[in-house]
Amino acid sequence: MARWKPDARARLEKAALALYREHGFAQTTVAEIADRAGLTERTFFRYFADKREVLFSGADVLQQQLVSALDDAPSALSAIDAVGRAVEAVAGLFEQRRDFARKRQAVISENAELQERERVKLASLASALADALRRRGIREPAASLAAEMGITVLRLAFERWINDKEDRQLARIMRDSLNELKLVTAGKG
Amino acid sequence: MARWKPDARARLEKAALALYREHGFAQTTVAEIADRAGLTERTFFRYFADKREVLFSGADVLQQQLVSALDDAPSALSAIDAVGRAVEAVAGLFEQRRDFARKRQAVISENAELQERERVKLASLASALADALRRRGIREPAASLAAEMGITVLRLAFERWINDKEDRQLARIMRDSLNELKLVTAGKG
Repeated sequence: MARWKPDARARLEKAALALYREHGFAQTTVAEIADRAGLTERTFFRYFADKREVLFSGADVLQQQLVSALDDAPSALSAIDAVGRAVEAVAGLFEQRRDFARKRQAVISENAELQERERVKLASLASALADALRRRGIREPAASLAAEMGITVLRLAFERWINDKEDRQLARIMRDSLNELKLVTAGKG
Repeated sequence: MARWKPDARARLEKAALALYREHGFAQTTVAEIADRAGLTERTFFRYFADKREVLFSGADVLQQQLVSALDDAPSALSAIDAVGRAVEAVAGLFEQRRDFARKRQAVISENAELQERERVKLASLASALADALRRRGIREPAASLAAEMGITVLRLAFERWINDKEDRQLARIMRDSLNELKLVTAGKG
């Protein structure tokens, strides 16, 4: 499904995450990451623009897959259900890297700059979804509203999944969250 | 006139916004802002921690008023309608400074760092609303979902109001946006 380049990239990611958690993101250098991974700095820069990008390089694939799942959703679906379909379609991207996702979240939650970056990334995802909805003929403000709902579901479901004691599937938590969103908005929350 | 402190703050804000728009946020210094306002740098720092805070100093009052409006909303209201009530209650804060709000938005939309800061501010507002909802006995994830819906309505309604050709009241645009959100979530978008 995803196109994560194996080995060198994976080793760099693993080394970076370990160091960010041991010493903090701000204190870790690219040299240390490369060293821990048994690779050169040059190799690091072949995969990542800087140490922050180790945490955010998945954003492009995520956006691509969200948008193409939305484009592929049956045209009979309402805007909110098409968005729900798209969000569920990317659950697998996270599922296959649950351990990475958890550790990444722990690093981000301790650094204000990384949190800002994460928020901006989510905002771009919402814009991309709204664009895709407009291509489906959904008008404003419905397109932006449905897109924002989708990203809210993605974010909250992700947080629940990261902390889930029962190891439920992310796709299922997303489905539940969307249903809860519908109940809340219908005044039943 | 210059001796009145409330006036000094307003003059600094006006001077800062003018300079941010003329030369860009990054290029403007506190010395220039004070100079344009006919005041000293020392006076500037009596009101603002730095040049970024000229744009964000309203956030505390906004959060306070949102939360107290939510605390005051009738307990019979559903979570989403209580949030809608709170969001509408702060429309006046923006209405009384429409010109400032517009110019501020123009500055923020041209600077990535300011956009990140704005997003983080909105995220804190959502957290504060979710806390207030839990105090009303709303459980998770309903509290977080309703809070996120409220901030989405606030943000999108604000953007529409800033660009509104018909000069409609922000409170009315907020009400319309919440209704549209309900329609979209009910699959009618």
